[in-house]
Amino acid sequence: MVSQPLFPTLAPTIEWRDGDLLLLDQTRLPLEIVVEHVADAASVWRAIHELRVRGAPAIGVAAGYGLCVAMQDARELSLAQFRSELERRAAWLDTARPTAVNLSWSLKRMLRRARECNAQDSALLYDALVDEARRIHEEDIALCEGIGVHGMPLIRPGDGVLTHCNAGALATTGLGTATAPIYAAHRAGIAFKVFADETRPLLQSARLTAFELQQAGVDVTLIMDGAAASMMSQGLVDLIIVGTDRVAANGDFANKIGTLGLAIAARHYDIPFYVACPSSTLDFHTATGAQIEIEERRDTEVTHLAGQRIAPQGIKARNPAFDVTPHALVTGFITERGIVRAPFERSLKSLFAAEGNAA
Amino acid sequence: MVSQPLFPTLAPTIEWRDGDLLLLDQTRLPLEIVVEHVADAASVWRAIHELRVRGAPAIGVAAGYGLCVAMQDARELSLAQFRSELERRAAWLDTARPTAVNLSWSLKRMLRRARECNAQDSALLYDALVDEARRIHEEDIALCEGIGVHGMPLIRPGDGVLTHCNAGALATTGLGTATAPIYAAHRAGIAFKVFADETRPLLQSARLTAFELQQAGVDVTLIMDGAAASMMSQGLVDLIIVGTDRVAANGDFANKIGTLGLAIAARHYDIPFYVACPSSTLDFHTATGAQIEIEERRDTEVTHLAGQRIAPQGIKARNPAFDVTPHALVTGFITERGIVRAPFERSLKSLFAAEGNAA
Repeated sequence: MVSQPLFPTLAPTIEWRDGDLLLLDQTRLPLEIVVEHVADAASVWRAIHELRVRGAPAIGVAAGYGLCVAMQDARELSLAQFRSELERRAAWLDTARPTAVNLSWSLKRMLRRARECNAQDSALLYDALVDEARRIHEEDIALCEGIGVHGMPLIRPGDGVLTHCNAGALATTGLGTATAPIYAAHRAGIAFKVFADETRPLLQSARLTAFELQQAGVDVTLIMDGAAASMMSQGLVDLIIVGTDRVAANGDFANKIGTLGLAIAARHYDIPFYVACPSSTLDFHTATGAQIEIEERRDTEVTHLAGQRIAPQGIKARNPAFDVTPHALVTGFITERGIVRAPFERSLKSLFAAEGNAA
Repeated sequence: MVSQPLFPTLAPTIEWRDGDLLLLDQTRLPLEIVVEHVADAASVWRAIHELRVRGAPAIGVAAGYGLCVAMQDARELSLAQFRSELERRAAWLDTARPTAVNLSWSLKRMLRRARECNAQDSALLYDALVDEARRIHEEDIALCEGIGVHGMPLIRPGDGVLTHCNAGALATTGLGTATAPIYAAHRAGIAFKVFADETRPLLQSARLTAFELQQAGVDVTLIMDGAAASMMSQGLVDLIIVGTDRVAANGDFANKIGTLGLAIAARHYDIPFYVACPSSTLDFHTATGAQIEIEERRDTEVTHLAGQRIAPQGIKARNPAFDVTPHALVTGFITERGIVRAPFERSLKSLFAAEGNAA
């Protein structure tokens, strides 16, 4: 499917065109815009493994289409052989990024569809898989749209909106999550400014968020992570919207390292602090943020930059990839169904828990 | 003069040895340790201009000795010619870094000494200049020692101490300012940990603070600027000590960008927040922080790293070099005469203003 282009000058994150999977290579951004034509199983695996497609929702969509690509040469096989190959190739694709929840989730969903499908031959079963991948894609677009619709009224003309890391269109196949209200407001003709925090160590805002907002024509200014509090103190920031990797039942949430400091400064200056939260990131099985385990990544991300060593040989470094922000610092969660306010435990549950989104 | 080596394995920042000026080249740190032998006026100018010596106090000391180096070949001249050359060469050295207050301050002081000196020939006048340069050097060492002595009791065994940027030994010729209590406590055998904030954009902590603490055998861990709040939330930080570039009469102070966010987070977690403040940074002519002008530096410091572009072409960036932290967030100023606590306006004045340090 071809979605409405958010960036007239930029290819979509993921495109399925007449049986071909096209991926915008995110490792080349922002300096080069390269669309990779993914034509076989090994290329799908490599594209996910090497982070050419990234962001939990985008990985989920890529995995669905990617499994279709991987099965294209199996359409001539018998139905039994096709089903056996499907399980085998899905299991192998799942190894491309072992900790990416959406990769497993999407592949499991594809396999479930295949098992439930009574297709008479391999070609028809393949068509059902393409249909399921399209659904995953459409749902992702709709989820971003929902966050955009509900978050847009938070942005007033003349506002300064600060965001961190890339919970953007490039991490999804739609408007992004934290960026969805920004794109929705921009689309509606509202004039406002965005400040994008660089996001060390991996510079996601410098490389991706600043890039995609610039491409979309949004007024965006790149700042250092350490400059955010200064911008707030000068009255330049009216609203903060960040993404999240996991939200506990009580509203404590994990997000890219640096988020907690922003939330504390926002409270100090009485600036509304919102978390864009697709229901897929709600984890009702985790009671509080204290139970969220934080990934500590390689210290070379800290000691090196662009392949060059910047810190002394042998120096100790800590590199937590995420921090946990307590719910008390959150003004609200922007979900695809509306904005959730305190008390979070009750309001998150009443909006989502009944339907099994807690898995 | 040769000061007591702080780092057994490292050359001093600045050394005057039998008429030779030796500078530790700070542009090569932390990957290479190179001592530059500065033997003529042009080399002094270049070393200051190219930041091979940096940090306000160190620049002041280098300027004093540097003027001596620049005058060595003038000792054969008549006294009148020597005096005329001295004025000319000092004015020229002063152009090496136009905004470095300590450079001007030190050169003016050297010229005053020359004017007040009744030496009978050029060689004797030259000796008086060397004596004045040595005094500037000794005073810098003593000032750092004073901050160390008064700040040391703040550090208890087992503490985690967080610092930002490089207000370290490398910026001075002694124990540094923010690092002085750290070195004093380490020298006294107290076991504690230091967290050094990377300090984007110019990475002063990664390149310099982490390096000098490591060289001195202090237990130091490098973290991202955005990780400081997370470390505080985990109870790993018991004390924060930062440096300052200017302190207003009411105790508001300017320091490297990122300091304000640390101060706000420290208040949130009730962590003592101290500012190492040599009396030379007190500015009683500036009533409050609102009057401190903040230098905005080139945006390529934000968009490029190690010579490589990391942000998209044409992106807007803000690059304030400093931020202003209000005095209400300061627990105390560690000065060479003791710790100053609120109400700051009164206590800073009573300790220093009487003696004309307000200039």
